[in-house]
Amino acid sequence: MSGVEEVDERVSLDLLKHKMAKFAKERDWDHFHTPRNLLLALVGEVGEVSEIFQWKGEVPKGLPDWKEEEKIHLGEELSDVLLYLVRLADMCGIDLGKAALRRLQLNAIKYPASNKYTQYP
Amino acid sequence: MSGVEEVDERVSLDLLKHKMAKFAKERDWDHFHTPRNLLLALVGEVGEVSEIFQWKGEVPKGLPDWKEEEKIHLGEELSDVLLYLVRLADMCGIDLGKAALRRLQLNAIKYPASNKYTQYP
Amino acid sequence: MSGVEEVDERVSLDLLKHKMAKFAKERDWDHFHTPRNLLLALVGEVGEVSEIFQWKGEVPKGLPDWKEEEKIHLGEELSDVLLYLVRLADMCGIDLGKAALRRLQLNAIKYPASNKYTQYP
Amino acid sequence: MSGVEEVDERVSLDLLKHKMAKFAKERDWDHFHTPRNLLLALVGEVGEVSEIFQWKGEVPKGLPDWKEEEKIHLGEELSDVLLYLVRLADMCGIDLGKAALRRLQLNAIKYPASNKYTQYP
Repeated sequence: MSGVEEVDERVSLDLLKHKMAKFAKERDWDHFHTPRNLLLALVGEVGEVSEIFQWKGEVPKGLPDWKEEEKIHLGEELSDVLLYLVRLADMCGIDLGKAALRRLQLNAIKYPASNKYTQYP
Repeated sequence: MSGVEEVDERVSLDLLKHKMAKFAKERDWDHFHTPRNLLLALVGEVGEVSEIFQWKGEVPKGLPDWKEEEKIHLGEELSDVLLYLVRLADMCGIDLGKAALRRLQLNAIKYPASNKYTQYP
Repeated sequence: MSGVEEVDERVSLDLLKHKMAKFAKERDWDHFHTPRNLLLALVGEVGEVSEIFQWKGEVPKGLPDWKEEEKIHLGEELSDVLLYLVRLADMCGIDLGKAALRRLQLNAIKYPASNKYTQYP
Repeated sequence: MSGVEEVDERVSLDLLKHKMAKFAKERDWDHFHTPRNLLLALVGEVGEVSEIFQWKGEVPKGLPDWKEEEKIHLGEELSDVLLYLVRLADMCGIDLGKAALRRLQLNAIKYPASNKYTQYP
């Protein structure tokens, strides 16, 4: 047995929100998780993702030339961004999944699929 | 009818990934969505979230004194961060939901719940 | 007469610090300029610089294909980053020019010029 | 003798630009210093500044309760932001000092000192 539970293929934002809340509560970290503290933590993690990409020049999709350990490291830093984002939204009383679906619907109206885009909007 | 479809209460990262892929494909935007382009777009959106919080000083959890329109605006900017993050992970060939669950499990080992934390680690 | 004073060719960090302090004082903005407020404002401006570069793919040095107005816009956003950085350092009681020269000297020791660098450190 | 040269009290952006250019040239790093590489490096350093402030809640001006080593660390990270910013402007062919003075003059017109500001603009 590995101690690592099996991963459901559909990870929801709600699941991550509850896991983060439980994690913080069990360690008595709630008082650290104010909106601006979490925002600065998010900025810190975005900085770490940037450090991974900073000296590489343009990078093709799928990262074909990256070592497995580099991809794992990137996955960890992207996860840190996600987890702080989920927690920040929760501490602001915002339903992130609902907001994201709404944003996609508004974008679909703003940028009709039938348009020709010669430049990225 | 509003044209806005009903929102499932459990929004998965996988759902958002597929919606973003479809959205980009229908508008012929795939060639814009290189890893570093998406990363810079993510940084831009984190900047917009920061602008919302920048002159407010410390902000209590739940944003009790914010106007409804401010909270909607924040939800939109947090969504933009999330959507670019999901798309960036996809373009890097990384399963973000799986990576996030793995990260949580590793953090649980790194920071045992039984510890006393006098300082945030 | 243009109302724009002639620019000395050697702009010092000290000059910018004093101009920012005077600017804030004259408008009674000092109470907004706390360290974390300024840091978030800085992040916001870095986001605006990123938005300029985000969909361009790799960009050659000197920006040969950019329109004059795009370069002016970039200069404005880089200036905003600089001015908030100078102000942030001032509000933290840090002599930024001195710190930067010290940093350069330490870097020169850390990365000797005689080394061969096959990879960026 | 310390190997550390005496620091002039008025450090100019021009001086830092020339020192950065010399530093990169001596180590054959010029080819790493493309605009987008430098921008991502800048984002990385802003992330490191954010990490210093992230769990502290609001912080008073002058950082009265910080240990000397924390202030030195902060000075180093702020310097890293400054040095990459100076280098980025140089690689974009932008005179950062001139742009910053121009920005200040335009801001003085945009926000007259005689106005009453009940909210930060």
